[in-house]
Amino acid sequence: MSGLKIALAQLNFTIGDFESNTAKMADVLFQAKQDNVDLVVFSELAVCGYMPDDLLDYPSFVEKCEHALEAVARACDGIAAIIGGVIRNPGKGRLLQNAACFMYNGKIQHTIAKTLLPTYDVFNEHRYFQPETNAQVIEYKGVTIGIAICEDLWDVYNDFEYPVSPGQALKDLGADLIINPSASPFHIGKQSQRNRVFGGQAARFDLPVLYVNQVGVHTELLFDGSSRAVNGNGEVVIQAPSFEETVVYAEFANGKFSVGNSVPLDTDDTAQLYKALVFGIRDYFQKMGFTQALLGSSGGIDSAVVQALASAALGGENVHPVLMPSMYSSDHSVSDAETLSKNLGNEAITLPIKNIYDQYLETLSPVFEGKPFNLAEENLQARSRAVLLMAISNKMGYILLNTSNKSELSVGYSTLYGDLCGALSVIGDVYKNQVYALARYINRNGEIIPRNIIEKAPSAELRPGQKDSDSLPDYDVLDELLKHYIEERKGIEELITMGYETAVVEKVVGLVNGSEYKRYQAPPILRVSAKAFGKGRLMPLVAKYRSR
Amino acid sequence: MSGLKIALAQLNFTIGDFESNTAKMADVLFQAKQDNVDLVVFSELAVCGYMPDDLLDYPSFVEKCEHALEAVARACDGIAAIIGGVIRNPGKGRLLQNAACFMYNGKIQHTIAKTLLPTYDVFNEHRYFQPETNAQVIEYKGVTIGIAICEDLWDVYNDFEYPVSPGQALKDLGADLIINPSASPFHIGKQSQRNRVFGGQAARFDLPVLYVNQVGVHTELLFDGSSRAVNGNGEVVIQAPSFEETVVYAEFANGKFSVGNSVPLDTDDTAQLYKALVFGIRDYFQKMGFTQALLGSSGGIDSAVVQALASAALGGENVHPVLMPSMYSSDHSVSDAETLSKNLGNEAITLPIKNIYDQYLETLSPVFEGKPFNLAEENLQARSRAVLLMAISNKMGYILLNTSNKSELSVGYSTLYGDLCGALSVIGDVYKNQVYALARYINRNGEIIPRNIIEKAPSAELRPGQKDSDSLPDYDVLDELLKHYIEERKGIEELITMGYETAVVEKVVGLVNGSEYKRYQAPPILRVSAKAFGKGRLMPLVAKYRSR
Repeated sequence: MSGLKIALAQLNFTIGDFESNTAKMADVLFQAKQDNVDLVVFSELAVCGYMPDDLLDYPSFVEKCEHALEAVARACDGIAAIIGGVIRNPGKGRLLQNAACFMYNGKIQHTIAKTLLPTYDVFNEHRYFQPETNAQVIEYKGVTIGIAICEDLWDVYNDFEYPVSPGQALKDLGADLIINPSASPFHIGKQSQRNRVFGGQAARFDLPVLYVNQVGVHTELLFDGSSRAVNGNGEVVIQAPSFEETVVYAEFANGKFSVGNSVPLDTDDTAQLYKALVFGIRDYFQKMGFTQALLGSSGGIDSAVVQALASAALGGENVHPVLMPSMYSSDHSVSDAETLSKNLGNEAITLPIKNIYDQYLETLSPVFEGKPFNLAEENLQARSRAVLLMAISNKMGYILLNTSNKSELSVGYSTLYGDLCGALSVIGDVYKNQVYALARYINRNGEIIPRNIIEKAPSAELRPGQKDSDSLPDYDVLDELLKHYIEERKGIEELITMGYETAVVEKVVGLVNGSEYKRYQAPPILRVSAKAFGKGRLMPLVAKYRSR
Repeated sequence: MSGLKIALAQLNFTIGDFESNTAKMADVLFQAKQDNVDLVVFSELAVCGYMPDDLLDYPSFVEKCEHALEAVARACDGIAAIIGGVIRNPGKGRLLQNAACFMYNGKIQHTIAKTLLPTYDVFNEHRYFQPETNAQVIEYKGVTIGIAICEDLWDVYNDFEYPVSPGQALKDLGADLIINPSASPFHIGKQSQRNRVFGGQAARFDLPVLYVNQVGVHTELLFDGSSRAVNGNGEVVIQAPSFEETVVYAEFANGKFSVGNSVPLDTDDTAQLYKALVFGIRDYFQKMGFTQALLGSSGGIDSAVVQALASAALGGENVHPVLMPSMYSSDHSVSDAETLSKNLGNEAITLPIKNIYDQYLETLSPVFEGKPFNLAEENLQARSRAVLLMAISNKMGYILLNTSNKSELSVGYSTLYGDLCGALSVIGDVYKNQVYALARYINRNGEIIPRNIIEKAPSAELRPGQKDSDSLPDYDVLDELLKHYIEERKGIEELITMGYETAVVEKVVGLVNGSEYKRYQAPPILRVSAKAFGKGRLMPLVAKYRSR
């Protein structure tokens, strides 16, 4: 068995941007050849970006994918590459397969298709692909290479047991190492999950594992890279950084990787969360061609944290907070928001909503007359603000960031077409207590978010003296309960058995189920947990359910 | 081979409402027993309603499903039933299976699981279920019954070829007839598709086929029933009505069904469309516990048609049109809308938006000053109206109907948080030309929609003299082009080859792709075509694509 110099190409691809994706690959191949690399490994579906979803239903999209693969293959002259792409299924079943193409001598020499097609949470690969049933290995420069695409190595780390193990099949065919091109989205806790998976599988098969992941925002999904090489003893010997495009070289000889470039990954959840969200905003804007962000700055903790994250991502001068006080806004809300903007270098705009609100009430008087103040008037305030924000967005080309957190999205304490507006929800997968942790993290080297914003009791300020705690349990209890219900799928009876008060459980679960209709129309949410709202949690609206 | 009296139970189930679903079944079983029926066939996943989506991830939901199945089984005393439900997968793979339970003597005697799991368009069954690999038949009163669940009989009517044929497997096992419990959503053209499928399969296997479908709205999906019995010669001998709960009895003897109860189905597309949408609104409201609808009535064709559909569904007294003229509204718009409301028996409310709009401009003057009138001011009008409508909705408990049509949703000619608001999009899967056809159909027995509304050139009336045709091709061309692009997945180059002008094709495709972000936040759309926006068309937002 000989040695190989292998490059881990951890790149940021744009879905459907074949030209720029293949140009990136060609650049890496060119440099790698200069550096005497034998093999460059790119991530899953690298050529088209993961995941194109129903663009795959367009035959013309698949053709472009094929042409792009052929074009990159021509650049593989004197160097080999493994490149993820879509291929046509040669057999019966779905028309496509999710494959890794092994390229050498200017041609695609082998295509290895994926066996285990994740179809749960945010994944729906069975929608497009036929699973592979035959395993094969590749002989290259004296090394027997096994390729297991992403999920193919996760056969023992799921909540059900896959009937087959692609890794075992490669081991049985005599593989010297397993290469795992991936598109593995980030969430809090994913790094330790990956340690378990790659360490565990390497040890199980007594084979080194090389995992190469893409980087970048793909609508809701944040891909973090964090590529790595693990030896057969389970030891991580090479670790690429998270949320960074990079190419790392690895030396493989005598059946193992030598210790190489490694960066320590953040182990603190809040530090990871901060990094993920800042990267998320920046890459979303970059890929969509946006530079300027807009948000409503209420003087509350949620908008303060989003404002700080956006300023870190885009630069303070590109973030435009709008203060829209009403008659129910406290004085400190306005002054806190002003201080925050100053601290972040944002130029704030102040537009009071009182006149607009009054005009609405006047126009609505034929309908509202004689009826008591209720939710309608509260929502009117939130929606008056949303219309102002969207007007500025339309006039100035600024992109509206949504500032709702996961706790309030869960229980429906946001106004549809009001504070639920926005092109991107930054903290829609971040529970209220995590928002506080982020605020403290942002202030770790000095006060950026005014202390008063962090310390005061949370309030929507939509009627006099309103507090979140008037109608909701404390966030300590609420967040925990929501996590059990949403992320761990506990039913009402289980929650009660766990010790939560029956009335609280029934209220909270009822609120979560009853506000599906709002989330149906919510903006895309940057996903940072294992169970985010959005494409990973599909719930019927027309249903009667309590999930007991 | 003996004979069987079989009941086709075409019922309307509510997802997760185990009590009412099982009570309905028990009623049918009770009556059927009186009528000496041997076997009652219910639809796919009857016990929980199709499709519970991620409620299936809750173990407590699955338990409830099991208990409900056991409860119905106890009612099967002296009568047999086939009832669709979720069962636990006894083998490796996904934890659940989509099954039909054959019940007799108070117990579930056999469970037959589904082999072909549709995972395309609006279906994602691989997300939840493990496919069955073993076929079995059931002996009952001298008849060998084969059960093929929904997609199991669609193996030759898809755009790809399934590797196995469950129908063939049943034929090989000696089945005397094939029973097909289904959850088969309606779309225009579905009836003739079903004729092809059931007629074709009956003839292919030379076996009678009995198809039993559910009725009802399940969020976006409209299930129409239209159950039927087809003999081995391909002849439809029993035909149940569409969009109606009903139980039809069929006599099976000597290897075939005798000619029985049949209702002719509408063959006219517009008549079907009308029936589907009226049923859709009615059942959506009923299941959600709503009675009163609200909509903006502009004097244009879209809102007029929705207003007429809603009045037919809910009763004229329960539909509340709101006229919100601006300075750009033509006189005839207001008077046409007033006439329409009178014709439909709706009590209209008129709330002019000029003062609100002016107040917005005044408040926004620090931002807008010196900048020319553009999209921002147009959208301000649409959003001012939306806030009024939502305020009335919140105050009165009326449910807002969205009135955007598929043509404008496609090209993004709707204002997000403006006329894109609503709890339910009634005609979001209906192209503009179909909207006109509906208007003429509504007027078939006399003028309900004023002729002027149908005849005038379409305009959003957001600036002086505006016409849709200023910036879009004629709807005849546009609708055709959209259908080729959205429903037939033609790429840009194919469309040009088909004879469309390059500039028009590039503009329209660019508009469709560029407005994904609006549809991401659009209300649920009643699906009446084979490719509707919503869960059946999943597109990335962050992407660069032209679908050439």
